[in-house]
Amino acid sequence: MASPPSNTSTPTAKVTSLTDLPCTPTSSWIKLQRATYTTSSGQSRTWDLARRTTTSASGIDAVSIGNIIRHHHHPKNPSTKPKPPSTILVLQFRPPVNAYTVEWPAGLIDKDETPQQAALRELYEETGYSGTVISTSSPVAADPGMSSANMCLCMVEIWLEEGQPEPEQHLDEGEEIQRVVVPVAELYDRLEGLAKEGYVVAAKLWHWAAGAKFAVENPGLFVKEG
Amino acid sequence: MASPPSNTSTPTAKVTSLTDLPCTPTSSWIKLQRATYTTSSGQSRTWDLARRTTTSASGIDAVSIGNIIRHHHHPKNPSTKPKPPSTILVLQFRPPVNAYTVEWPAGLIDKDETPQQAALRELYEETGYSGTVISTSSPVAADPGMSSANMCLCMVEIWLEEGQPEPEQHLDEGEEIQRVVVPVAELYDRLEGLAKEGYVVAAKLWHWAAGAKFAVENPGLFVKEG
Repeated sequence: MASPPSNTSTPTAKVTSLTDLPCTPTSSWIKLQRATYTTSSGQSRTWDLARRTTTSASGIDAVSIGNIIRHHHHPKNPSTKPKPPSTILVLQFRPPVNAYTVEWPAGLIDKDETPQQAALRELYEETGYSGTVISTSSPVAADPGMSSANMCLCMVEIWLEEGQPEPEQHLDEGEEIQRVVVPVAELYDRLEGLAKEGYVVAAKLWHWAAGAKFAVENPGLFVKEG
Repeated sequence: MASPPSNTSTPTAKVTSLTDLPCTPTSSWIKLQRATYTTSSGQSRTWDLARRTTTSASGIDAVSIGNIIRHHHHPKNPSTKPKPPSTILVLQFRPPVNAYTVEWPAGLIDKDETPQQAALRELYEETGYSGTVISTSSPVAADPGMSSANMCLCMVEIWLEEGQPEPEQHLDEGEEIQRVVVPVAELYDRLEGLAKEGYVVAAKLWHWAAGAKFAVENPGLFVKEG
């Protein structure tokens, strides 16, 4: 994994050993490790990190499900306005931050599952909706200064009929997840509002919404040169 | 912090105790903890998490510096094209993922520092550039299923004169950080290219770029209803 910058002939940094820092009692979910690594200038250093013990066969821990809900429009009354394209968010209590969070649906990838399979499974479990994966990101690092955790962003398109009722969730026993459907055009403002109410927004969702808002407000910055 | 959903009268979940899972040897940077919490239906459960030991007085761990570099244009030759609005990224070896990562400049907030002060300090140290903070996000959760870590995204505007040379970095001893300046309009494509070369892109930067790309390609989804 320690791929070098391809534009340099200097030696590349790499981890040379990884030892557990055993905890008492042991956690079944997370462990601490100390990486010993050599810098590109040949020095030996250490760095402590957290690692999930549950990483799937794919080497990818988790998937989050960016999603766009669109409605087929067959108005009986032609004056009916179609529902705006929306996205479904989940609100749940997250013990690590001792708060209710706002996130896109997400979850760990099960053994032998692909990110796309995990995305559609988690979307169905947490929201009841089925959709189609329209893109999958490279594996990206959740918090690379602190942990080895990585994830893919799957964008999923969900097509509904006008007036189709909200489906049942299929939660694991004990899971308590609320759904909120938000028009895409209002996503950033709604996240700001939820943060003011005391919800903690997940960094990844916030960044996606902030990037979209920035592009909408500064279209001139995104014009590619010929 | 366990703010309840304001639209419900059901009891809110909350962490009732937090105990360290002591590790040997101890890390100065991270610890594991076991949260005991009650669910909104009154059940008692546990959840293991990683926590930074370095959280600043503000209660916010870190800041990342989204940035836009713009050039004042005073062409001596009127046919000179201004440089495109760009953003500066940093490439560095990150032991937790045993890889070189692509991130916006970022860092931990020092004791008694505000997020904005930390943003301008880290930007200066890692890139040499000075700028102005134009927005600061609410504190958002880096990976709320796994850790308590939170951060703010500060957007910083950097104005340069045409032809101004790249300044010196002011790195801590032993820090090895490369800078890459990328036109904003090419950000997503460049991140994809770097991922193909073997770099690991930080999830937050990826999500910002993905949100911007999505908004550019689907402007109709972002039109607010009157």
